Amino acid sequence: MIVLGSTGSIGVNTLNIARKFNLNIEVLVAGRNIEVLNKQIAEFKPKKVVIANKDDISKVNHPNVSFGEDAILDAIEQSEAKTVVNSLVGFLGLKPTLKAIECGKKIALANKESLVVAGKFIDQSKLSPIDSEHFGLWYLLQDKKIDSMTITASGGSFRDYPLDELKNVSIKEALNHPNWSMGNKITIDSATMTNKMFELLEAAWLFNTSKLDAIIETKSLIHAMVNFTDGSTTAHIANASMQLPIAYAILGRCDEPILKPVDLLQVGSLEFKEIEVSRYPIWEVKDEILKNPDLGVVLNAANEVGVYKFLNGEIGFLDISKTTLNALNKFNNVKPQNIDDIFEIDKQVRGFCES
Amino acid sequence: MIVLGSTGSIGVNTLNIARKFNLNIEVLVAGRNIEVLNKQIAEFKPKKVVIANKDDISKVNHPNVSFGEDAILDAIEQSEAKTVVNSLVGFLGLKPTLKAIECGKKIALANKESLVVAGKFIDQSKLSPIDSEHFGLWYLLQDKKIDSMTITASGGSFRDYPLDELKNVSIKEALNHPNWSMGNKITIDSATMTNKMFELLEAAWLFNTSKLDAIIETKSLIHAMVNFTDGSTTAHIANASMQLPIAYAILGRCDEPILKPVDLLQVGSLEFKEIEVSRYPIWEVKDEILKNPDLGVVLNAANEVGVYKFLNGEIGFLDISKTTLNALNKFNNVKPQNIDDIFEIDKQVRGFCES
Repeated sequence: MIVLGSTGSIGVNTLNIARKFNLNIEVLVAGRNIEVLNKQIAEFKPKKVVIANKDDISKVNHPNVSFGEDAILDAIEQSEAKTVVNSLVGFLGLKPTLKAIECGKKIALANKESLVVAGKFIDQSKLSPIDSEHFGLWYLLQDKKIDSMTITASGGSFRDYPLDELKNVSIKEALNHPNWSMGNKITIDSATMTNKMFELLEAAWLFNTSKLDAIIETKSLIHAMVNFTDGSTTAHIANASMQLPIAYAILGRCDEPILKPVDLLQVGSLEFKEIEVSRYPIWEVKDEILKNPDLGVVLNAANEVGVYKFLNGEIGFLDISKTTLNALNKFNNVKPQNIDDIFEIDKQVRGFCES
Repeated sequence: MIVLGSTGSIGVNTLNIARKFNLNIEVLVAGRNIEVLNKQIAEFKPKKVVIANKDDISKVNHPNVSFGEDAILDAIEQSEAKTVVNSLVGFLGLKPTLKAIECGKKIALANKESLVVAGKFIDQSKLSPIDSEHFGLWYLLQDKKIDSMTITASGGSFRDYPLDELKNVSIKEALNHPNWSMGNKITIDSATMTNKMFELLEAAWLFNTSKLDAIIETKSLIHAMVNFTDGSTTAHIANASMQLPIAYAILGRCDEPILKPVDLLQVGSLEFKEIEVSRYPIWEVKDEILKNPDLGVVLNAANEVGVYKFLNGEIGFLDISKTTLNALNKFNNVKPQNIDDIFEIDKQVRGFCES
């Protein structure tokens, strides 16, 4: 298979699964972490390697290294691998997803932005989501009449932070997620709850419903719940590790031990909280966005600009959501008719937010 | 259908479902609550009624009333109804279960003692359990490799009672269950945790496994969990009402609203506790009984005698479990070879415990 984003947490876990099930790695795609990439090359012996920057090529211990976005698309097109694991971060992941679909490959999709911005134009027939929540939903689905679905949120880095001090939090504090260790972008998106908004949009495309909601479960042990018409709810409980969704996304079914089961006696208690607009301003537009998922591309572009500016020290934490809400207000009439429109709207929104 | 135990909580809920889905009631079987029975007769117009005592016949507003155990068996045999809901309490429920099987009728089984004492000899092909926990387990089963199953317990009336005062609790206190309103026998069995031991035995027969355990979930909202080989756990969550298991047991599938869904935000938190031997002495023999389910008939007979004596003011609360543990110790070699042996062992154990 082809692993896009091999040195990130999803990439590393994907290679753990590959090691466990003896799966062949054809192409490794990574960014700037050449040290980890070289270890991966030594172990998995890929045919081809793609990295982000030309300057790093000489540091990579492989005879066939290329760089940049086009090289990723070429690698997908030229490879005989049947599966692409896409764990690239942000809008950047969309083109590889489209290319993999075009080439008829199976896609294990951790790049949630692909569905958030262009779900309307994405053929899902060979796509499996790598996300605890959507895996949980899928896992629970049975032949019963479904009413609605609920996913959970950890509440992010500032779940219990004094509300009136939120505007002055530091980048370091924002990157300190309570339950998971993930990349910077998704950790910030967790803290603003934008990540959960992304996941609701994703779920809307994957499960073809807008009866979706999210609540906070502080220990991240329950990932998803399905609410049935009869009044029952079923829940998927697992320790917080991406290895399970990854294994299913790649293998289809998995009858071997992957994770240590949750010991509820050791856990002792679970706590549920509402996602409040006062703490997570983006939640104000949740219903509007679920009703009009065309707004996904606006939400994502504005958020990418906002997060970038925050991590660059240019704006405060609360300004990230302000940037997004401003853009959603300005671009609330977008009606993308095709995939080219998505790229065009993305560009316009970025221009607006950067100015 | 035939409703055995129509004035108890399962019986009343069964008639609620019958009203909702316009189901025909052929026979009503009740004990001493003639006032409620007469209301049920007026509404559901059964062809036949059976009660416990001859003396009450004149009080029943129905032309076709008989009494006693044999009359129940006759009613099952003579009725054209295809379904028997058996919510009789105790060993008394076994013969009607056997009769219903003999007559080829579908059995919605709330009389857990039928499986506890004679699971080995019960044909389950037309049997559905009416029990939140087993319904939950069934509800969760999908085509995935199962490792083990966990059911939950409320902890009963004395979950938070000072341990050293347990021996002096009153009958009234023992009957005060924290989460459910049920009959006297099952409320006492909840307080001693014997009811959960019964349910584990039932689950062993129903799901053909001994990898079973129980934990306390104090709010009785999670009823059952299935632990899969991959490390996932799925949970069935529903408000505490028997209407859901009853609807499924009778209808097979149910796509209409039956219960109000659980609102986890309102619930706030869930708490899990170990079932400790110090508070629930019967738990000491859990593994032994699951390994040797032949002991079910001993467990049940001794417990019925113990509970009867406690409710009669003859022994203290802790003496119920002592009675049971003594009997299990004395009769730990029973090897019933057929259903007649079950009745014989039952008689011997009762004799031993009463003397």
